[in-house]
Order: sequence, then C-alpha cells, then structure tokens
Amino acid sequence: MSKTDERDRATLEKIRMLAMQALADVRAGKNPQLSIPVRALSNVSFDTDARIIRLGDNKQHRAFFHYKQARLFMQTFLIAERCKKLIEAGATTSIRDIYYDAKHTIAGSKENTFDDQSESDPIIEDLEVTIDALREELHLRAENRGAMVGPMTIVDTGDTIDLRRMGSGGWSVPSIVEDGRISFRKHEAEYVLFVEKGAVWSRLNEDKYWQTHKCVLIHGGGMAARGTRRLLRRMNEELNLPVYVITDNDPWGFYIYSVIKQGSINLAYESMRMAVPQARFLGVSSFDPDRFDFPRSVAIATEDEDKRRAEQLLKYEWFQSKGWQAEIKQMIKAEKKYEIEALSAKGIRYITQEYIPQKMEKRLWLD
Amino acid sequence: MSKTDERDRATLEKIRMLAMQALADVRAGKNPQLSIPVRALSNVSFDTDARIIRLGDNKQHRAFFHYKQARLFMQTFLIAERCKKLIEAGATTSIRDIYYDAKHTIAGSKENTFDDQSESDPIIEDLEVTIDALREELHLRAENRGAMVGPMTIVDTGDTIDLRRMGSGGWSVPSIVEDGRISFRKHEAEYVLFVEKGAVWSRLNEDKYWQTHKCVLIHGGGMAARGTRRLLRRMNEELNLPVYVITDNDPWGFYIYSVIKQGSINLAYESMRMAVPQARFLGVSSFDPDRFDFPRSVAIATEDEDKRRAEQLLKYEWFQSKGWQAEIKQMIKAEKKYEIEALSAKGIRYITQEYIPQKMEKRLWLD
Repeated sequence: MSKTDERDRATLEKIRMLAMQALADVRAGKNPQLSIPVRALSNVSFDTDARIIRLGDNKQHRAFFHYKQARLFMQTFLIAERCKKLIEAGATTSIRDIYYDAKHTIAGSKENTFDDQSESDPIIEDLEVTIDALREELHLRAENRGAMVGPMTIVDTGDTIDLRRMGSGGWSVPSIVEDGRISFRKHEAEYVLFVEKGAVWSRLNEDKYWQTHKCVLIHGGGMAARGTRRLLRRMNEELNLPVYVITDNDPWGFYIYSVIKQGSINLAYESMRMAVPQARFLGVSSFDPDRFDFPRSVAIATEDEDKRRAEQLLKYEWFQSKGWQAEIKQMIKAEKKYEIEALSAKGIRYITQEYIPQKMEKRLWLD
Repeated sequence: MSKTDERDRATLEKIRMLAMQALADVRAGKNPQLSIPVRALSNVSFDTDARIIRLGDNKQHRAFFHYKQARLFMQTFLIAERCKKLIEAGATTSIRDIYYDAKHTIAGSKENTFDDQSESDPIIEDLEVTIDALREELHLRAENRGAMVGPMTIVDTGDTIDLRRMGSGGWSVPSIVEDGRISFRKHEAEYVLFVEKGAVWSRLNEDKYWQTHKCVLIHGGGMAARGTRRLLRRMNEELNLPVYVITDNDPWGFYIYSVIKQGSINLAYESMRMAVPQARFLGVSSFDPDRFDFPRSVAIATEDEDKRRAEQLLKYEWFQSKGWQAEIKQMIKAEKKYEIEALSAKGIRYITQEYIPQKMEKRLWLD
C-alpha cells in the first residue's frame, strides 16, 4: 500500500470512530456529544524543550440535544462527512469549496447549514484537533503561494521534477505536500534558505545563489503558506537540512520567522507537524545597518504600531533569549526598520555576493 | 545575436537617445527638457477597431531649469541610468529594489533623490512611455504570481520545462516573459484557459482538465500579474491560441477580464503589448445560476459598492455590446453575485466535468 493510501486509510478510520462514538451514545440512550480540544490562548503554551507552541488538554463539549450546541454538532458531522467523501474520491479541495459543498438549505426550513465561510472554517479546525489529523490529511487545501528551486529532484503526484532546471519561474509550491504526494529524490543541498519576498527570491535565483551555495531556495510571498511551512519542516526533519530565514527588519518579519520556527498561537495544534524549531533567523537584523554600513537614506522610521508590536514580541516566551531581546530592543531604540530590498542601495547583487555569504560565514544568525 | 541581446541593444539605444537629446540641448545653450506622453484619463481612449485602450498624443514637458520640474527631470535620468546599468549587467530587478538602488542623499545636502517608492514608480512609467519600452525591457520585474500547466514545452532562461509534468504545483509564472527569456516549443494546446483563483486552478489541474481538453491552464492569484498578461498575449498572438477567462460573477471579476482583454486606464500604454482583444469571458455569468440550476443558498447579496461598480462598468465603451449590457444589468437586477467556488455545491468535480465542457460546447461565452 502506498504512503498516501495508508494515511488516507488512517484518516478515514479516525472519522469513522468519531461517528461510531456518536452512534454508540444514541444506542445507549445518551445525548451524543463531541469532545473538542479548546483552541484558545487559555489552552496554549510554549514547550521550552521541544521549542514549539503546543495546544493543552482542555476540552469543550458539543452535544446534539442542546439549544446552543446542536447547530455546531450538525456542522461538525457535515464537514466530517464531506471530508470522508473527498478522501474516498481521491480528491482534494479548498476550504472555500468545502463550505459551498456543505452549504444547503435544510429541507422544510429556511435555515442554511452554514451561513458563511466564517462558520465552516473554525469547524474544520475543530475537526482537525478532535480526530488529530492535519487539514491536509482531510484533503483540504489552503492557498498556493511561493516558489522553489534548488539542487534537488522531487516527485510531485507522479511527475519527476528537477528543481535545478526550473528557469526564472521555479516550481510553484502546492498547498498539500504530504509524503506520497511530494517525495524527495536525489539532492546535493546543504541547507534551505527561505526568503519572505518573491522579488528577493527572484534576485537570488537569477544570480543562481542556490547553485553556488548548494541550497534549496524557497519563498512564501509574505507569510509562509501552509504548504511552504510543511515543506520546510519535512526537509528539516527528513533530509536533516538546516533552515535559514530572511525577512524584512520589522516586527512583521520577526513574526513570519517565529511562525515558521514555533508555530502560531491560533493554530497551535499544527505546530507539532509544521514548526521547524531549529530554524535560524539570518536577517535582516537590527544590527546589520551598522555591521554592513547601510546608507542612512534607506532607513524607514518605525510607527506607533511597529513599536507596539515590537513591545509585544519582547514578551513572548520564545523571544526571551539574550540575542532576541537585544535584537528587538535595538529596533525599538533606533526607531528604524529596514526592508530586505534596502540592500540594493549597495548594489543589486550585494545580497547575493556579499550579504548572505558573509552572514553565513560569520554565523550572524539568531536561533 | 539572440533575441534577448537584440532587444536589450534596442532599449539601450533608446536610453542613449534620451540622454543625447538632453546633451544636445545643453550644448546649444538651451534648457534641456523631456517630452513625456501624459498618462491620465484625459489622454486615454478606447480604440474600437483594435479593441484596446490606447494612450493619446498629449505630452507634458519636464525641464531641467525649472523650479518645479528640476527634481522630476533629475529622477527620470537617475532611473534611466539605473536601467541602463541593469541591462548592461544582464540583470533584472524589482521596482522596489530600483527605488532603493537609485535612492541616496545628495552630497552636501539633506535632500534625498527619492523620498518614497511612490516617487519612483511613476517615474518608471514615465520612462516607459517616453522611450517606448515596456518596463520588462528596462529589466524591471513586477510581482511573480500565478502558475501554469498544460500540453506544452517551454524554455525559461535556458531550462527546458515540460508543462505536462509539473505535478500539483505547476510552473510559477515569472514576471518577465519576453521572447528569448521564455520561448514556446512543442505543444498540443488548442486554447488557453485563465482562471482567476488558485484554488480553482488546483481543482482543474488535479482533474487533469488540461490533458483531457488540450489546453494551457493558468491562474493569476486574483488580478492577472503583468507576467501572466504578457504570456496570455504572446500565446494568443504567436501560437494563435484563443484565450478564455473564468472569474467570479461580480464586478471585480468582470474587471479582471476587461484588463486582460483591453488593458487598464492607468497603464494604457501597455495595452498595445499586453492586451488580448480576442479574449472571451467564459464565466461565471449572471445567467449561469438559471442555466445551470445553482442552489439558491450559494448566492451572495450584492452590496452598494458592487452596485456602484456595476453601474460604472455599464458605461465603459468596451462593455457596450448587447451581451455585456444584458450580463451586467442582470447582476444589478438580481442583486446577487456568485463565486466560482459556488459550483462546488453541485459536486466538487462539477466544474471540470460539466460546467466548463458545457459552456465550451454551447459557446456560452461573451466577447
């Protein structure tokens, strides 16, 4: 049995168990109910050993015979049933499509099963944590975003793709990259370089940085999409490749890095399989303007919002290391932020030829 | 000489001529000045024969010795000089990078050459229209967005890429797709299908619609990026492939179609080489809910803003055909709009197996 089939079978079994439990309750004359791990800040903690954000053990209950919970109970099973059909059909779909797929007017009423996608999205997250399956295992896609090149061959749903020969465009990273759908073949990569911005990725790809420095080059078009995060994790875990992250020097850039590294509070459940605790922040650091002698004109004054966000980051458990505290405090003190593109002021190939190689060589990263 | 070299040489010559003219003025003791086509609604018209939005002949002047124009004059030449260097170096860069590249504090003053990217972007557009070169020919990149698969082989900057074997991800469409950088090789495509949304593209790719129906499948991740538009144009013009466009049924979807077809008012100059006047709108049409029996629950009520935009579209010259007038009026009358994903209410593969094939067969498109 293929890896995909095995995983699909396991997920189907989890959905079946959920239904069997409800049926057993009914047969026993009990009010059927679901126990759903609470997805809220109150039930989230930072695991300092594993260095990921984890969901705790608190659960909420959702009963069928209950004035307020009946609708949610019905919706949870509707989504579960739709996912079951998707898996059986060997198809994947987006969370917006499944909303439409599951939406209908209940016969003999004017009531819709879902009024809005904002009702079905949290139900999907509930289902994930309840049966312990990533949404990708439920065959649900998020946004496709980002592209990848590098000294590596992969197989994507049966097609062998040589990421060394992807031209200026690259391979567009799909949303579902689970083993079996995406497999790694022969590679000569020594690390993975994630850059926040497509424009910077294009610069590095045009200069064939990945070839000279033997690395996989990937971008997220901003915040890394789920597919990109999962792929970073898999390359780190399965291929033992260190992951380096380059973002803008601003609170949002630091946040993008922290989501890759330890996951997010909102989706703490995913961290176990999406986070890359070993990921290193390679820049742009608040100390780089001095280290690399940036011209003054490229600095951007921080705004109140930046300051507020930076103060918030200072308090997060995962930013308590000496290095990160100094990093964030320096940004607040300097009242300046910098985009990656600011490096172009020193020449458009400065990032490829000087900045990244020097940072790597001098180990100027933060853990 | 390769096509890329030829074009680069021509662009360099255009930049040189711009500089020579200014020098000649100086030598003749005249105030050097630039004549720049006016990029404003007042100088834009719809060419009913060519069916594209065109820039007119009005020009503005920008003199060196002039209190208000001196800064813009300086900026235009700064950008031109940076583009010249880019072309000579065989490099491309983003419009944000070139802003940083050209930004510096003028010696002996506190004055910056550019204070903000909002100053350099319009200068780039001025330069394009003044010397008659697309920004891609100036080696400037826009955003990378969108992906492509299909029965076609292409060459992307030296790498041969078989778009029949790109898995679930696809080839990420780069920003610069000019001939020489991107070339078309062997293909069996009979048309090109552009879909607005990545999720819909993934559905069609997963179902291998492009294989069964012999078409190139491309998406824009929303509004088609410049690279995608230029590629649609090139496939239409050079390979004689008809282009079909599928967007949401809302004013924004109609607008996305109209930009692909006749260009935009803001960038009228580009239309000559980016627009696809033969592009056909394949849906989602305001008449489809009846034709295809959509469940009522998937309709979304239009808001005031939708109505206002729809009324505006009704007046555009390029929407004056009987078909388009009926289409837009139907949306206004019904007070409903529909997302492409609404088709999933009829089954997630309905779009692949029923909707698009039937629309193609019954020629249910709008010109």
